[in-house]
Amino acid sequence: MTATQGAGRRSGPGRPPEPGHDEKIIQATLRLIDQGKPVTVNAVVTGSGVSRAAVYRRWSSLTDLVSDALDHGRAIPEVDVSGDLRQAVLEMLFERQEEARGVTYPQRRFRKRLELVMSDQELQWAYWTSHVSRRRRGMIEALRAGVDRGEFRADLDVEAALDALLGVIYYQLVVRGASLSDRETELRCRHALDTIWRGMQA
Amino acid sequence: MTATQGAGRRSGPGRPPEPGHDEKIIQATLRLIDQGKPVTVNAVVTGSGVSRAAVYRRWSSLTDLVSDALDHGRAIPEVDVSGDLRQAVLEMLFERQEEARGVTYPQRRFRKRLELVMSDQELQWAYWTSHVSRRRRGMIEALRAGVDRGEFRADLDVEAALDALLGVIYYQLVVRGASLSDRETELRCRHALDTIWRGMQA
Repeated sequence: MTATQGAGRRSGPGRPPEPGHDEKIIQATLRLIDQGKPVTVNAVVTGSGVSRAAVYRRWSSLTDLVSDALDHGRAIPEVDVSGDLRQAVLEMLFERQEEARGVTYPQRRFRKRLELVMSDQELQWAYWTSHVSRRRRGMIEALRAGVDRGEFRADLDVEAALDALLGVIYYQLVVRGASLSDRETELRCRHALDTIWRGMQA
Repeated sequence: MTATQGAGRRSGPGRPPEPGHDEKIIQATLRLIDQGKPVTVNAVVTGSGVSRAAVYRRWSSLTDLVSDALDHGRAIPEVDVSGDLRQAVLEMLFERQEEARGVTYPQRRFRKRLELVMSDQELQWAYWTSHVSRRRRGMIEALRAGVDRGEFRADLDVEAALDALLGVIYYQLVVRGASLSDRETELRCRHALDTIWRGMQA
């Protein structure tokens, strides 16, 4: 089983009442991350009480383990493309952020994730491949549906358009250090997304 | 003198042949940052050979000192709004990135800056206030010129539009871990910026 498949399996909302080995390993990894300590196999083994072999059986590298741990608790929400597309996409970016981020995925963990991926390009690529690109799929399908319906330009680069939509949100969090729950920030985002949406239209 | 004014004064291309106290302090701070060591007043004093008093005279907090150090070597390029606006803005985002980033401002330092601001919200706000928001001014003026000329919608939120344009670039570097010198990345950015530009037009 690859790390990606495993993460997919575990990223649903349910968590078993008796956590298994993988869950113990992930929780031990998250404790190290939250305490700002380096994630080593020794520290994970000590913290989880799980054997070295169990860690290696499941994750081929520490990078993959940290990547999966950083995504723990996040869901992959489906985008409803049957109705108003604009409404569905805006909901994903605002109202359903909580759901996409996961109820157990606090702002602090988001900042920590960005801190870690900026300090480690391998981790950044692992997180992109195993988690971000999977989470984008529903949105990409929604944008493709818009092209198919003739709502968007036929030549729209949907990957680029999604980068623009999500880029607005990331810019607030990473560059401005602003919170989306701040009214002024939300308004600015809505204006920016409105501008991008106009540019996507046929 | 405030940290902001001082940073403005030093952010030009010229550097005195005999560096003064401020320059020694900034260089000692950058050495600590590049080595991944904590920036403390003691370490800066030891590394620069400059007195404690000189550090405090110039920077009221370590946060302001680190913020200025992280911006060292970056220029604030002017945007030429007399000709084709689209061309001028695209040049700023692509060809003139080197200039805006500063020749002495490598990719490594960019990643380190993001790592540090994500781990320290005070630093993030200080960097935004003293450096990013100043660097945006030329672009904001260029977009306002576009509104005045009737090239863009009269109701365009230029701050939001600039967030969208820059957000595309940040998304590549922060989320995808992609390089702008990569051909596929550059094309995707150009498509995204084209979409935003269409949405800005009157």
